[in-house]
Amino acid sequence: MTMNELKTPYLVFLGDAQDLLMAKVAKGVAHWRPEKCLAQNRFDNAKADLGLPDMSIRDAAEAGAKTLILGLAPMGGTLPQSWIPLLIEAMEAGMDIASGLHIRLNEIEDLVAVANRTGRRMFDVRNPPKTLQCGTGQPRSGKRLLTVGSDCCVGKMFTALAIHKEMAARNINATFRATGQTGILIEGSGVPVDAVVSDFIAGSVEQLSPANDADHWDIIEGQGSVLHPAYAGVSLGLLHGAQADVIILCHEEGRIQMDEMPGFEVPDFDTLIETNLALGRITNPNIRLGGIALNTSSLSEDDALKAIERYQAKFGVPVVDPVRTGVAAIVDVLEG
Amino acid sequence: MTMNELKTPYLVFLGDAQDLLMAKVAKGVAHWRPEKCLAQNRFDNAKADLGLPDMSIRDAAEAGAKTLILGLAPMGGTLPQSWIPLLIEAMEAGMDIASGLHIRLNEIEDLVAVANRTGRRMFDVRNPPKTLQCGTGQPRSGKRLLTVGSDCCVGKMFTALAIHKEMAARNINATFRATGQTGILIEGSGVPVDAVVSDFIAGSVEQLSPANDADHWDIIEGQGSVLHPAYAGVSLGLLHGAQADVIILCHEEGRIQMDEMPGFEVPDFDTLIETNLALGRITNPNIRLGGIALNTSSLSEDDALKAIERYQAKFGVPVVDPVRTGVAAIVDVLEG
Repeated sequence: MTMNELKTPYLVFLGDAQDLLMAKVAKGVAHWRPEKCLAQNRFDNAKADLGLPDMSIRDAAEAGAKTLILGLAPMGGTLPQSWIPLLIEAMEAGMDIASGLHIRLNEIEDLVAVANRTGRRMFDVRNPPKTLQCGTGQPRSGKRLLTVGSDCCVGKMFTALAIHKEMAARNINATFRATGQTGILIEGSGVPVDAVVSDFIAGSVEQLSPANDADHWDIIEGQGSVLHPAYAGVSLGLLHGAQADVIILCHEEGRIQMDEMPGFEVPDFDTLIETNLALGRITNPNIRLGGIALNTSSLSEDDALKAIERYQAKFGVPVVDPVRTGVAAIVDVLEG
Repeated sequence: MTMNELKTPYLVFLGDAQDLLMAKVAKGVAHWRPEKCLAQNRFDNAKADLGLPDMSIRDAAEAGAKTLILGLAPMGGTLPQSWIPLLIEAMEAGMDIASGLHIRLNEIEDLVAVANRTGRRMFDVRNPPKTLQCGTGQPRSGKRLLTVGSDCCVGKMFTALAIHKEMAARNINATFRATGQTGILIEGSGVPVDAVVSDFIAGSVEQLSPANDADHWDIIEGQGSVLHPAYAGVSLGLLHGAQADVIILCHEEGRIQMDEMPGFEVPDFDTLIETNLALGRITNPNIRLGGIALNTSSLSEDDALKAIERYQAKFGVPVVDPVRTGVAAIVDVLEG
């Protein structure tokens, strides 16, 4: 993936997915960027449905589709042979292909040959841009918000997308900046920071989020947690490169143990907030906590609202569940 | 570079270097690992001298040299054409080649062809191992020391090598673990952490420093600083992967501004020590400060010793200048 934007509109490929859990990325693209999605393409035995018109490759191409989005993870991690003729057909019909698969399309000879012959591009979102630079730490114009986490998979991408959407609805000048594979496929551009050579983490985020209008907000998707035993380096480089004016702490309410990290507890909010602010001050002395985003899906409505109230009283910032309450309370304060 | 060790002994190549500043890495290898250095090879117009016997490729091969060390950076960053016949001759005579150059030998077709034909290996130390894993954070046996810095280029590698040497002299069971290109060429193995994909920083250091005898010390070379605006992600992943029992803070006395980072001051020792210990506790709750290593080369002997005394009184740990005083005071405490 380079920082080039994917061409729109998209034909979203669902293969033989039996449900949308198997097609999480496709679902994210259709949910957050419906205006970019022209149609879906499914095998006859698929049951997943994004609610988009079903189109064949040829029909989608004729209707103007410019990129086929490979938005699902096949079982076993390899590319099913049955997909290859379809990808070839798409390129021959004039579409680029964007893939979030573990397997890189650019390493599959048959596909590379067709791409070369047709002049179509295959974007593997796990491939970082080739022109990365080291960070400079120099301030740049524009405002930046970064979602930071108590752990992996706590809603950092979702929260950033929700804040960006709320800002767009209010005509606030804002851009979502994707740093993970799903986010990149949703936005159609971005940098997969966990795939960047470590020397360039901060620099790649400086490049992702360049100087901008003074009233413009970059809403930057965070990764991991600065207190995560395996991925803190990624999170810290991202924090420094973002030069965040505002961080939003994201957490899944009820999670005590870190995901896939036996023996590691999720740190408390005080430590998380203080650590992010202290480390973030290195590249932005004015960094502040702008809110807390909770995933309260494991709680009843009543318990969820009580938890939100409790945190709000304790930390003095807006606390939201992006799904249950929306993020308007956070944007209100940023706008104020 | 994989984690395979370079075969010894070495023939150290000096090209046409006019002084040892141009051959910094070669000088480091000869200084720290003299027992591995069989001879040097120089062009007629070279003035740099490591004090090793001069040998032709053929003589060195006959005397048993197994690896040619390319330990100098050519002007302009490219590989001079005049070096290629010599590198080919070395491989044909049975030697591997280890290079710290920016240019990768494995991307130069003429050399790759000879390597394939002769079965010799070319190690580009900027290439990280291909079999990296994410960190687990799980404790492992053995003791670990990590040098941490107030900035880049403050003596982290030198201090680690000096502590390792002092331990070896006392028959303490210890291994130097290299994490930078010079360190890797000196030790003959290691992982270039700043070239590792960021997801794997912590994991690569776990692999570099695996479980060991309970009384064994890994002396791990640090990189950058956890408070560095461009490279903190590397430093933090290294700290977490090292699971350091002991950190040694390294600093160049008199440095106020960070190297190549206009506008960034070197943080004070209190902040550096607290931040490293607080972040390091994530993967080793017993991490402690084991000493401070100063580069006092800009000070008079008298001023240097006064500075050392002052820090020692303030921080209650051994303070040394590895060059001026040696590191025995630090090892005394570790042994005690």
